[in-house]
Amino acid sequence: MTDEPTAHSSTPFPSTPGHLAPDDVGLVTSLDFVLPRPFTFKNSQPLDGLTLRYETYGTLNATRDNAVLICHALSGNHHAAGWHSPTDKKPGWWNNLIGPGKAVDTRRFFVICANVPGGCSGSTGPSSTNPATGEPYGLRFPALTILDMVRAQKLLLDHLGVAELHTVIGGSMGGMTALLFAIEFPNFTRRLLAMATTAREGAQAIAFNEVGRQAIMQDPGWNNGDYPPNGGPRVGLAIARMMAHITYLSDASMDRKFGRRTIQSREKSPQLSAELALSDPQLSTLNSQPAAAAADFNLQFEVESYLRHQGQTFINRFDANSYLYITRALDQFDLDHAYGSLEQAFAPVLAESLIVGFTSDWLFPPEQNRQIAQALLRAGKRTSYAELSTDLGHDSFLLESEELYALIRGFLERTPPATTADFAI
Amino acid sequence: MTDEPTAHSSTPFPSTPGHLAPDDVGLVTSLDFVLPRPFTFKNSQPLDGLTLRYETYGTLNATRDNAVLICHALSGNHHAAGWHSPTDKKPGWWNNLIGPGKAVDTRRFFVICANVPGGCSGSTGPSSTNPATGEPYGLRFPALTILDMVRAQKLLLDHLGVAELHTVIGGSMGGMTALLFAIEFPNFTRRLLAMATTAREGAQAIAFNEVGRQAIMQDPGWNNGDYPPNGGPRVGLAIARMMAHITYLSDASMDRKFGRRTIQSREKSPQLSAELALSDPQLSTLNSQPAAAAADFNLQFEVESYLRHQGQTFINRFDANSYLYITRALDQFDLDHAYGSLEQAFAPVLAESLIVGFTSDWLFPPEQNRQIAQALLRAGKRTSYAELSTDLGHDSFLLESEELYALIRGFLERTPPATTADFAI
Repeated sequence: MTDEPTAHSSTPFPSTPGHLAPDDVGLVTSLDFVLPRPFTFKNSQPLDGLTLRYETYGTLNATRDNAVLICHALSGNHHAAGWHSPTDKKPGWWNNLIGPGKAVDTRRFFVICANVPGGCSGSTGPSSTNPATGEPYGLRFPALTILDMVRAQKLLLDHLGVAELHTVIGGSMGGMTALLFAIEFPNFTRRLLAMATTAREGAQAIAFNEVGRQAIMQDPGWNNGDYPPNGGPRVGLAIARMMAHITYLSDASMDRKFGRRTIQSREKSPQLSAELALSDPQLSTLNSQPAAAAADFNLQFEVESYLRHQGQTFINRFDANSYLYITRALDQFDLDHAYGSLEQAFAPVLAESLIVGFTSDWLFPPEQNRQIAQALLRAGKRTSYAELSTDLGHDSFLLESEELYALIRGFLERTPPATTADFAI
Repeated sequence: MTDEPTAHSSTPFPSTPGHLAPDDVGLVTSLDFVLPRPFTFKNSQPLDGLTLRYETYGTLNATRDNAVLICHALSGNHHAAGWHSPTDKKPGWWNNLIGPGKAVDTRRFFVICANVPGGCSGSTGPSSTNPATGEPYGLRFPALTILDMVRAQKLLLDHLGVAELHTVIGGSMGGMTALLFAIEFPNFTRRLLAMATTAREGAQAIAFNEVGRQAIMQDPGWNNGDYPPNGGPRVGLAIARMMAHITYLSDASMDRKFGRRTIQSREKSPQLSAELALSDPQLSTLNSQPAAAAADFNLQFEVESYLRHQGQTFINRFDANSYLYITRALDQFDLDHAYGSLEQAFAPVLAESLIVGFTSDWLFPPEQNRQIAQALLRAGKRTSYAELSTDLGHDSFLLESEELYALIRGFLERTPPATTADFAI
């Protein structure tokens, strides 16, 4: 059973604020699970007192088999649904999917989401204080893999009293985590839903991650990973995020959203300027070009403002070393290599699965999702592949889509397969 | 006529070095054209003594109508073919296309290629010395547009005695330049060949350019554009180039070329390490991760080495301010906006044209090239569109392709249209 109830049903209310909407999980509190024993990372390095910050929505049932694990992506965290306070501007990152009556129905499921180890939203990561030194771990934090994320989250589920996972769900890095969960804990995982993901990072995805890492590591503020909290390579991290953000969208969606619209009129407005532009003093060159200059490299197009805003907000919520560690974990993810082949990787899987690709995703394109489903089929597994036509790029899995909700609902709520009796083998 | 002959035919030679191959233009010398009068940029700013560095291959004929202008891309320059010395490791950037008997046959055509104004390979740009101050122009160099590149190159052609251009050819930014040449100098331009290009930069392309500019401008070495020669924002420029280079390739070509191959074995070899890694002292963190670190963010995948090598070589041949100026010129290129519509833009064109798109080009995808051809058709122009199936991405136009050579040869050598008599109208 869960230690504390963290989600509160809320009373329907006319003209409701978000957290009081009838299909919203409402106000939620994050919890910490401190592992009672040292956690040994895949690289054999042990870590004392590893903490996972997590949230749960809904209630674990008496048979303890209605749990749904939500796995977050690179820049995500444990706050998947609900609101931390009535004045929050935004709910959790997958609030559109999770709630009473939503596709992941919290009246029916006990939903768990944890910040991954190595992260920076409350779980132990490179920015956490190393008790041995009183300083942040920095690069002394153990090398991180997706397998470490899976194993740590399994310990959390055990702690919460989950007997078996009804479903493990994730997109992007969360999809890799979900795949590996079904592989590593086959007797524990009954359904697998992986979206906008890949069984192995390709050269282009590695290349983008590498440029991001270089932007961070070349920033003098990085200092080999040793920097004060709220300091560090803020410029490098902003550059990395701006670039990565392009890969989450699509040419079509950017053209529709921004096109070639300029912000010359808005630029005159200090209010919007302040909202959109990077106001970090370390990033001040963005707003301080010499007046004597003949050329104008200040903000000119809306898409530039948007990206700078993405960079700015990211550096205030993400740690640069976590970015290095997690992107490296992504790059090293390769199920073929780790298990000999994709079929061998999937051989132990007992979960039935749904793999979803999005046509406009060019980071983990449909083809890479199709390959997962086909390997599952070749390995004799119950699996389906759905390809959704969107023009919203990689981020499609996060965005509102009745078509996606219906797919997920159908997959989660369909009756178990006739072979369920075999499941516990 | 050309002032000096710059291309030397070479004698066939068994087991020949590149510059002595029978279909090579051989050793070439770059020349400088100093504009006799101040050049007024589109932003109304005049510049005294604007210099264009250029090369020519082949000979202008008696009727002075066999000239082919080659327009280079963002990171290209005037050295399109041949060799500067017998010990050069590489010939000009389009040597595979230009030479005696090649697709652009220098036995038949007088081929000209100039470094654009604003560039950094010999033409006057932000890194050139401002005679008024004795210092580099930096951001005091006039704002740059593709139109400025076109107008300056027209003055060079006049200087060389070219009566009319047989063909203007370019890919990527060179394609934009070629389009605008045919629009601005319709009576001078008989054929137009534009490849892997666009009539307007889309939001995604602007976004990538903006991240590159931010990487440069956020580098403390940039100093608002005032930095010593060989100094400046070398790190930022390397990051910008690494990122941009990904957009010139394709997922498929990167997977074939690098896949997920690691360089752990090679890493041990100091020789290859030195060749591949960034050895610039300012970029030294690449090779100097603390030994105490638990995680390894040093080189791991071949694709990372490749990108770092691209970054390293670029900063030794390109100026950061030029990168800002030229990418801004690209972003501002928008024929629809400049002329009211694409049809109106093309209305004055008298050239017959061939537009070529490449299926795997995701920077300026086939669709954007098709739009150019269709607008030319709607404007009543003689045009053809060819789409080549490649998986080499945007750079396809630069790479060996018998299919492309044959297309270009056929376009350049076909007999003039029956309406040639109308041409001079």
